[in-house]
Amino acid sequence: MQKVLLCVSEPLWFIHKRTVEPQRHGGTEGIVNKTERNVSSKGLIEPRILKGFRDYLPSITIARLEMIRKLERVFASFGFVPIDTPALEYAEILLGKGSDETDKQLYRFLDQGERDVALRFDLTVPFARFTAMHLNELAIPFKRFHIAPVWRAEKPQRGRYREFIQCDFDIIGTDSVLADAEIVAVIHRALTALEINHQIRINNRNLLNGLLQSLGAAGKSVPVLRAIDKLEKLGREVVHEELAREASLSSKQIEDIFTFLALSTEVGDNAHLIQSLRDRFQGNDQAVLGISQLETILSTLPSYEIQPELVRIDLSITRGLDYYTGTVYETTFLDLPGIGSICSGGRYDNLAQLYTKQRLPGVGTSIGLDRILGAFEELKRLAEKSATADVLIALVDEPSFAQAINLSTKIRNAGLNAEVYPEIGKLGAQLKYGSKKGIRYVIIAGEREVSNRVVSIKDLVTGTQTDNVPIGDVVSQLKVMF
Amino acid sequence: MQKVLLCVSEPLWFIHKRTVEPQRHGGTEGIVNKTERNVSSKGLIEPRILKGFRDYLPSITIARLEMIRKLERVFASFGFVPIDTPALEYAEILLGKGSDETDKQLYRFLDQGERDVALRFDLTVPFARFTAMHLNELAIPFKRFHIAPVWRAEKPQRGRYREFIQCDFDIIGTDSVLADAEIVAVIHRALTALEINHQIRINNRNLLNGLLQSLGAAGKSVPVLRAIDKLEKLGREVVHEELAREASLSSKQIEDIFTFLALSTEVGDNAHLIQSLRDRFQGNDQAVLGISQLETILSTLPSYEIQPELVRIDLSITRGLDYYTGTVYETTFLDLPGIGSICSGGRYDNLAQLYTKQRLPGVGTSIGLDRILGAFEELKRLAEKSATADVLIALVDEPSFAQAINLSTKIRNAGLNAEVYPEIGKLGAQLKYGSKKGIRYVIIAGEREVSNRVVSIKDLVTGTQTDNVPIGDVVSQLKVMF
Repeated sequence: MQKVLLCVSEPLWFIHKRTVEPQRHGGTEGIVNKTERNVSSKGLIEPRILKGFRDYLPSITIARLEMIRKLERVFASFGFVPIDTPALEYAEILLGKGSDETDKQLYRFLDQGERDVALRFDLTVPFARFTAMHLNELAIPFKRFHIAPVWRAEKPQRGRYREFIQCDFDIIGTDSVLADAEIVAVIHRALTALEINHQIRINNRNLLNGLLQSLGAAGKSVPVLRAIDKLEKLGREVVHEELAREASLSSKQIEDIFTFLALSTEVGDNAHLIQSLRDRFQGNDQAVLGISQLETILSTLPSYEIQPELVRIDLSITRGLDYYTGTVYETTFLDLPGIGSICSGGRYDNLAQLYTKQRLPGVGTSIGLDRILGAFEELKRLAEKSATADVLIALVDEPSFAQAINLSTKIRNAGLNAEVYPEIGKLGAQLKYGSKKGIRYVIIAGEREVSNRVVSIKDLVTGTQTDNVPIGDVVSQLKVMF
Repeated sequence: MQKVLLCVSEPLWFIHKRTVEPQRHGGTEGIVNKTERNVSSKGLIEPRILKGFRDYLPSITIARLEMIRKLERVFASFGFVPIDTPALEYAEILLGKGSDETDKQLYRFLDQGERDVALRFDLTVPFARFTAMHLNELAIPFKRFHIAPVWRAEKPQRGRYREFIQCDFDIIGTDSVLADAEIVAVIHRALTALEINHQIRINNRNLLNGLLQSLGAAGKSVPVLRAIDKLEKLGREVVHEELAREASLSSKQIEDIFTFLALSTEVGDNAHLIQSLRDRFQGNDQAVLGISQLETILSTLPSYEIQPELVRIDLSITRGLDYYTGTVYETTFLDLPGIGSICSGGRYDNLAQLYTKQRLPGVGTSIGLDRILGAFEELKRLAEKSATADVLIALVDEPSFAQAINLSTKIRNAGLNAEVYPEIGKLGAQLKYGSKKGIRYVIIAGEREVSNRVVSIKDLVTGTQTDNVPIGDVVSQLKVMF
């Protein structure tokens, strides 16, 4: 692997203005556009990034990677397996079931081979394509997780970027509601691992569909879902109007829907709500199916050691999409509920119907990792730690540096992280460096110390320094400290 | 985070042929091209991926993630910190020092805002841009690693893809050769963590430049490097011709270069080679500087506990690029040397000169993770493990499932991975599923077992089954097994 592929064919040409021509990728109708380089008066290119994108500095990257590792461990602890798919796919694959909204958000272009390609905007569509292609290689039911960036050319908003990491996990190839229950358990354990105070809210599509049936409005679920999804944002009046206009519902029908949606806030806990739903929907097969699926999920909570109050039936959750057919999930970050759901999804009837005739029902959700990261930043819950090292080893003079390096090796062999300052020089600068990075302990092993087979350990937080620690004891002392 | 953004506005439209129009992104000169959907006779879209890209099935993804985790731990053990940058950047930033070769390989297009953008093709250019933008926020010297995908529209070859992960690590902001030495130690520990039998080959640019100076050919390093980089591939004759033509060197000069390059294969070990270089370059300041830098690096090997024979001076390593100014590195996978260097890089004088006036010398290399993964596949060294679960818990009947789920929770609480089969059903299918996934142990806890407070544990490899294991003992028994 070459580190840098570039050759400087024209030495120093880069300090001159130059016209950059986007490639035309072959055909005569390719991109033709000229842009000027942003060259400053000093002959430098202005370093900048695209609107809606961001750099991750060490402190936030450390936190983000740690979160990802925790999620991976939780997914694995339930037997979910990781997969990966290309960032770039044929646009026709990604647009499979597209809407105008998706179209507009897609980073789409013609590649060098005139192929119509795009960057993935979620991990579900690639998963469907993947499953259709590799069905025979997979053990079904298939439980996969996928943690990877996606790209959406959305209007950038505070805390929302055009590139962000999605964490999807799904169980496909089974209709069993026990899979739906496991998803609750995974969400709970994942958010607990991230130390997030949360409440998981669940609903079931069969309830609303059963209601519509009983109102003589079966088959109108698409416009109804679309309308009531806006209830919280736009209020009853607007939604009432939309339901009348788009779903041709009568005022009576609309009021019945509103009454139903309000049930979960008016009736107390899950048990009472289940009871009142059973009363309300006696004899309505579809609604009763939804109720009993919710009941089964709730019945597994003790087995998963989940406090019952952490999971709540919420009839107002619609998740807008006709795609879902059974359980739907949303999750509230109780310390910052305003950021919206941090883990959502649901059960669907057929994952890969665009690509294969094999029916693959499934259930899954997606954790909004970058949204959570943004919330942590807002709550000032991210450790301002921009170091991975447990200790810094100062290099203070020529005769001692080899022993100092060797000490770092011993510390590493013991499973700790030791950073050696890369230059031999003044201690002051090295202590300042340690402070700036947030490394708490500095080991000083100069000529005097090394000849006495000792080191000094300075605590940069308290400012105290312990001298004459025998070199042979350093590793064991550090092991106690970390 | 919404799991799926799509709405099905036209139910079932997807089974009809449809013309897909790439977006025009505003301006009148955007992409205009019509492509037909690949719809089969069954009305399905053919699931396929782009040439040069690949899917990662669970077994290889598990191996790849494990490798990445190991590398991260090694980088952190030396105090390197992670950063992340956007996959998409302004093309002018990525092309900063571009060559025709880079231009051709770039996935470049106009985005919705008519910006000329491209997918990064390496992690060095974004790092330079990042450093220039965030200099004040970083502790200098700055040691970063970055493990992320890059994209190059190269001709796909066996084992080489258009999307692959790069693992870069660099120390910038110091001229100290101790940083160069540390890079050797990081490479060694990283490849040791991956259980790769390796040899690190190092060279120093000051040697060749010193030689050219002594030959009265100073300043010709660019065409000379470019020519001798082809020595192994094209042979002496062709390179001789190119040196005469492109660098206007005499036959005597060219022979002197060839004699120099052959030194490291003719002279025995590093110590003898250093001695013979010292003799050859007496009084040549630049060459002597290179020699002593190589010597310093070699002198640190015992402190890093690296066997001396694992690091070898190789004067024929040129790394083709004028970019490097001191130490250069290549690394051979001794079990499969034919795949080329698996970790390469070098010292450079000024990382971010295109973007800032601040001089940032540095040194770093890049591990070819996906090349190594390909080698492992070829050597059949990848465990065919497509499971993350340590045990599978079968669900065999209705009365026992809650207890079976609870057992999985206890196992997870103990830090092990327990997968519960998501459907209650026949044991045979569940055992088959466990076998296909490569899960060795299956816990069977049906009604009979649960009422006796025991389980059976079946070993799918040996076929043996242990009955009547008390439920309370399962976790401790598993802890011994894993």
